[in-house]
Amino acid sequence: MKCLFSNVDEWKIIQDKIEIKENRLAESIMSIGNGYMGMRGNYEENYSGDTHKGSYIAGVWFPDKTRVGWWKNGYPEYFGKIPNSVNYIGVRIFIDDVELDLAKCKVEDFYRELDMKNGILNRRFIVNINDKKFEVRVARFLSISVKELAVIKYSIKSLNSNTKIKFVPYLDSNIKNEDSNYEEKFWNGISSSSLEYKGSILSRTKENAFNTPVFTVGSMMYIKTNGDVEAVSHESDYNYCENSITMDVLKNEVASIEKYVSITSTRDYKESELLRKCEDILNRELSKSYDDILNEHIKLWNKRWESADVKINGDKSSQQGIRYNLFQLFSTYYGEDSRLNIGPKGFTGEKYGGATYWDTEAFCVPVYLGVADKEVTRNLLEYRYNQLEQAKDNAKKLGLKGALYPMVTFDGVECHNEWEITFEEIHRNGSIVYAIYNYTNYTGDYKYIKEKGIDVIIEIARFWASRVHLSTKKDLYMIHGVTGPNEYENNINNNWYTNYIAKWCLDYAVENILRLEKECNECIDRNNVTREEVEFWKIISNKMYLPYDEELQIIIQNDNFLDKEFVEVKDLPKENFPLNQNWSWDKILRSCFIKQADVLQGIYYFGNRFTKEEKKRNFDFYEKYTVHESSLSSSIYSIIASEIDNLEKAYELYSRTARLDLDNYNNDTNDGLHITSMSGSWLSIVHGFAGMRTWNETLSFDPKLPKEWKNYSFNINYRDNIINVDVCSDLIKIENLKGKPIKIIVYGKKYILEKCIKIDK
Amino acid sequence: MKCLFSNVDEWKIIQDKIEIKENRLAESIMSIGNGYMGMRGNYEENYSGDTHKGSYIAGVWFPDKTRVGWWKNGYPEYFGKIPNSVNYIGVRIFIDDVELDLAKCKVEDFYRELDMKNGILNRRFIVNINDKKFEVRVARFLSISVKELAVIKYSIKSLNSNTKIKFVPYLDSNIKNEDSNYEEKFWNGISSSSLEYKGSILSRTKENAFNTPVFTVGSMMYIKTNGDVEAVSHESDYNYCENSITMDVLKNEVASIEKYVSITSTRDYKESELLRKCEDILNRELSKSYDDILNEHIKLWNKRWESADVKINGDKSSQQGIRYNLFQLFSTYYGEDSRLNIGPKGFTGEKYGGATYWDTEAFCVPVYLGVADKEVTRNLLEYRYNQLEQAKDNAKKLGLKGALYPMVTFDGVECHNEWEITFEEIHRNGSIVYAIYNYTNYTGDYKYIKEKGIDVIIEIARFWASRVHLSTKKDLYMIHGVTGPNEYENNINNNWYTNYIAKWCLDYAVENILRLEKECNECIDRNNVTREEVEFWKIISNKMYLPYDEELQIIIQNDNFLDKEFVEVKDLPKENFPLNQNWSWDKILRSCFIKQADVLQGIYYFGNRFTKEEKKRNFDFYEKYTVHESSLSSSIYSIIASEIDNLEKAYELYSRTARLDLDNYNNDTNDGLHITSMSGSWLSIVHGFAGMRTWNETLSFDPKLPKEWKNYSFNINYRDNIINVDVCSDLIKIENLKGKPIKIIVYGKKYILEKCIKIDK
Repeated sequence: MKCLFSNVDEWKIIQDKIEIKENRLAESIMSIGNGYMGMRGNYEENYSGDTHKGSYIAGVWFPDKTRVGWWKNGYPEYFGKIPNSVNYIGVRIFIDDVELDLAKCKVEDFYRELDMKNGILNRRFIVNINDKKFEVRVARFLSISVKELAVIKYSIKSLNSNTKIKFVPYLDSNIKNEDSNYEEKFWNGISSSSLEYKGSILSRTKENAFNTPVFTVGSMMYIKTNGDVEAVSHESDYNYCENSITMDVLKNEVASIEKYVSITSTRDYKESELLRKCEDILNRELSKSYDDILNEHIKLWNKRWESADVKINGDKSSQQGIRYNLFQLFSTYYGEDSRLNIGPKGFTGEKYGGATYWDTEAFCVPVYLGVADKEVTRNLLEYRYNQLEQAKDNAKKLGLKGALYPMVTFDGVECHNEWEITFEEIHRNGSIVYAIYNYTNYTGDYKYIKEKGIDVIIEIARFWASRVHLSTKKDLYMIHGVTGPNEYENNINNNWYTNYIAKWCLDYAVENILRLEKECNECIDRNNVTREEVEFWKIISNKMYLPYDEELQIIIQNDNFLDKEFVEVKDLPKENFPLNQNWSWDKILRSCFIKQADVLQGIYYFGNRFTKEEKKRNFDFYEKYTVHESSLSSSIYSIIASEIDNLEKAYELYSRTARLDLDNYNNDTNDGLHITSMSGSWLSIVHGFAGMRTWNETLSFDPKLPKEWKNYSFNINYRDNIINVDVCSDLIKIENLKGKPIKIIVYGKKYILEKCIKIDK
Repeated sequence: MKCLFSNVDEWKIIQDKIEIKENRLAESIMSIGNGYMGMRGNYEENYSGDTHKGSYIAGVWFPDKTRVGWWKNGYPEYFGKIPNSVNYIGVRIFIDDVELDLAKCKVEDFYRELDMKNGILNRRFIVNINDKKFEVRVARFLSISVKELAVIKYSIKSLNSNTKIKFVPYLDSNIKNEDSNYEEKFWNGISSSSLEYKGSILSRTKENAFNTPVFTVGSMMYIKTNGDVEAVSHESDYNYCENSITMDVLKNEVASIEKYVSITSTRDYKESELLRKCEDILNRELSKSYDDILNEHIKLWNKRWESADVKINGDKSSQQGIRYNLFQLFSTYYGEDSRLNIGPKGFTGEKYGGATYWDTEAFCVPVYLGVADKEVTRNLLEYRYNQLEQAKDNAKKLGLKGALYPMVTFDGVECHNEWEITFEEIHRNGSIVYAIYNYTNYTGDYKYIKEKGIDVIIEIARFWASRVHLSTKKDLYMIHGVTGPNEYENNINNNWYTNYIAKWCLDYAVENILRLEKECNECIDRNNVTREEVEFWKIISNKMYLPYDEELQIIIQNDNFLDKEFVEVKDLPKENFPLNQNWSWDKILRSCFIKQADVLQGIYYFGNRFTKEEKKRNFDFYEKYTVHESSLSSSIYSIIASEIDNLEKAYELYSRTARLDLDNYNNDTNDGLHITSMSGSWLSIVHGFAGMRTWNETLSFDPKLPKEWKNYSFNINYRDNIINVDVCSDLIKIENLKGKPIKIIVYGKKYILEKCIKIDK
């Protein structure tokens, strides 16, 4: 697998050969997006080999019907999915009357690169058709300057003959989701039309039985040509429109087309306006040249990199990994639209449906805090605030008070349908509050809590207070029937992480209420907080059961965990991995193997409450049994490994995070990229190796350097400062790039950072 | 609800009014069946009110597709259902050109009775049409003498006018399951035809994606008339055929038709032979008169009652209850066909799909042992033996050894699709072995174990040996990740009942192997039993963890059970019940409330291993929290209550069992009857009040009399004897009706029962 991308470049993902059976993997890796829309790395021309054509529009979703055998009260009724949408990249190519198809034609010198610096997907190859040779070059990008705009440039040079080339650019909304439960289509075509060099389609998601919103999408293409056009024809039907452009090409000449597409949806406009808006955008943009449009796009990508780039010296593969992760993360979300969020597979696949998970709060928020303006994170927090009513409904359906944020959602309503997840994986609620704490602590902006955050904090405290029970026998509050972050156990009792974060949520609510009683009475009043409930929260917190093993001096992941049969990951024959593809669910559930950081997730979140020895004991115990089959796992373990000076492990786990998809570690990248967990490589470097923390509103570092690297450096956006950290083997250089002097702590020692400090290691 | 059947008769279920909104309930109650086929108590004529028309054919099933959101290895792919089949009872009635419809017409003196003694459903009423009065009488039965035969006699007397009456008997296979997941039809019509007084249909279950068998059903009707036929016409299309028979009726005269239907299926014949077989049956039967056919049927029902009837004096409602239960149980299954089994809803509804559950072994086997020939039970055992290969496959899918019998099945393959049931409710495997033990111990017939039973016993022992794990910490064998009989907890650890029966299965396997080593080496050899595995079984049994609370001196239902918040059922406001209709699944799972006997089920199974004090302590603890929302629960509690002399409770729980459907206790009888649990009322009397046991191959009684009854008596089929037991307040009379003198124990004292013994209480 590695061989497909074995030519490692620091700024590019390079594929220099075609492997038919690895096509889906390559399609995932070569995905691009601009936050508003995105797509897998499909070829523009027809491809008769195995492929998963996928293009997706952020915020457009569909409730796919699904039922379990036995309905029980409170089960969600559907499984929300991001519908595979109009295929707008398509350009069929006929050279000398033969259709170009990379699965069939004779191809030489295939080269494809994802240019991460500039946000462009480039491809070139030589093809032999009827004993004639042609050089094909294709460039594609989704503009981050004009979000509705996609641009493709398709050029063919005839190397040794005069011939005819026909370009057939098209739009096609006759599209099905691969993961549709019953092979249903999610779209209805409404209308289409075509003119010379133009075409458009209007399509609408199907009416559904669940009363969720219906979305209409307008798509329009304009074609520019370069070369000797012999004939143009066009046609359209229902779900499809095309142009057919035939050009005469002489030997050594180039024929090319530029395809400009705009995509609009009823998320932004009325249905009746969609095509007019598409037209406006295209008319405006086409007054510029291809190069101008491309350069605007490149400029913005370069700006993103200026503030976010992480440089690693001495390890090309690590360098490529972290850039790839940031590139794909930013392609999925860059904070422009508070109605949107970060789907675990972004625009690169269907399996996780492009919906919002707790990944956002737990893994992405700390990255966006560090590399982007604080508004990006604020938008992510507001996304949840705006869905508070739905979260309250969700709790109510279970007979509980307060708010339970959904495990998976598009609009605040639970979109997943397995009880062991939706009812039980309630620790997610903790991360919603933790993100508010994180934002406030990091930015110092307490306004958000006053305006909106406190409402969420209070409703979540109410949820926990109604979800705990007092064990009659032990006189302690317990939380039974949960699934912790380790989803390889379900319906367990007293998951330490869940109990701990529930307790913390209650404490944090009390703490904020005490402060707001002084600063903002209205905040308390609008939430109808009573003295009794606050007192009750304190009692629960004081009496919360937190499983601990005195003998091993470790936290117990959950009740009965230590009763298992213990086998270490290293002692399990390789052919068992990944367990989720080779073992029955029954066997997995009962095993001691941990899918992802669970106790360690809590130790990471609340790292200032545990000693290094405690961290080490828990790390050493749990790491042995952790299989990291969630992409969210390795980064947390890597961070703690750095903290306890186990740099070898930290580096191993960093690599696994940073190159999870590029090296297809979990053997599932063909389904799409692990977008949200891509944040983990940044966390492993910045929170891990560099030991950045912000406890008590103070920026601190504890930098270490893995022996595989010469040095690494990154920029941090912290409050009004931009700070560069450069870690070499013998020297730490910390530079204040922007902002006033600021107090920082390095290796536990306080400094005032004016311009630059250098610390010998 | 009670009022619909408040006219209590000891041999009849009487409905003397129509309640439109209770129609589904009445339809369930008035169900009839003959083991081969059966139906809900629908009206023959059209009915425009709320109705669930349902007729079902034993052994014909369909895999309804259903998917969960997230597929995991080992999940079953479909949910098996019994398809609602051809409607063959239908007769549309037009009187004076007005269609008879009980939801619309003016009806007086409505009377319907289910005649349990004779197995007939009778109905009569007076209807006013165009100011004319007519008396309608309908009789329906499914012959137990000719299983393929259904007979309906429909008579209309004109009370005060001369008029025309049109009878339109039909067959209709254009039928849908109410519980179809996606409103799909399960049937394809193949052909139909009609002639004067005749009609037939051939229909086939749809091809499905799961490679399960397809069934074809042939149905044919012959019509006989009584009266002055003016005209006959007929038609058919695809899924439907009808006759239209118009008769002139004078005042005070009767017009009537007899509809004879035969139903055949590819379970018994080739598809091409089905209609010819139908024809043969009808031709043969129609050489007899209606009365002759009916009398053959009645004679056989009377014979069933002779050996099975339970008489209760002084409590009509209890008397009716037990007879109703036995009637419906026998209507569902009377042991003629070892390919069939007893579905929890029999032929009376769709929800439990007419499939086989552990109910059969746990609840029905002891009844059939007591009231029918031993071949009936042997057929039930062979049903499982014949599915051993599928059970081995089922275990293999989970990565386990040996055999895991499915939770729900038609042909041995798991037909249910919730992991918490299929993977986890593995205690069912214990009941499969227990039934073999029960049969052998009861009948003294060890041959079955030699021929077939030992294969099942060994494979199930192998299953347990691979399903337990050794707790590294406690050095005890444990069973994690199960659902016990109490399905209101899922995925729990060390369910005492499961661990106990697993240990027993291992012990029982060892015991039989030791015996067979002497008696039947081939039995050991054909199963490739090794000395090592037998030794391992012994070790597991010795080290099996069985949760027990020293303080309370009770068995603990499962790990963490005592950590719950304890609230007694009596302290919960009534509007919460049934919990499964009013609480979220989340709330139910975490509560202390027990759906059905769990610890008590084990105490019942292994009653000779617990002292009366132990039984009392456990009963008193668990009964407080048991909601009996499974129909299988009350009978077990009633039996133990009798044993510990809590006759008041025993009677209360008996009534709940015996009249569960007649009084619609769980508010779900409209979906169908609780067929398998109907065995519970017999068990509550015979094992409960009469304290019948057969420990160590010895018949014993410990009779008690609830204060509500004057006396009760029943017959028992025990080995070569038929014994009558009659329990009065002051006297127990035990009579040897058939067979040699036999040793029995009454109140702990040994007797030789020659003809009759009388014991003063």
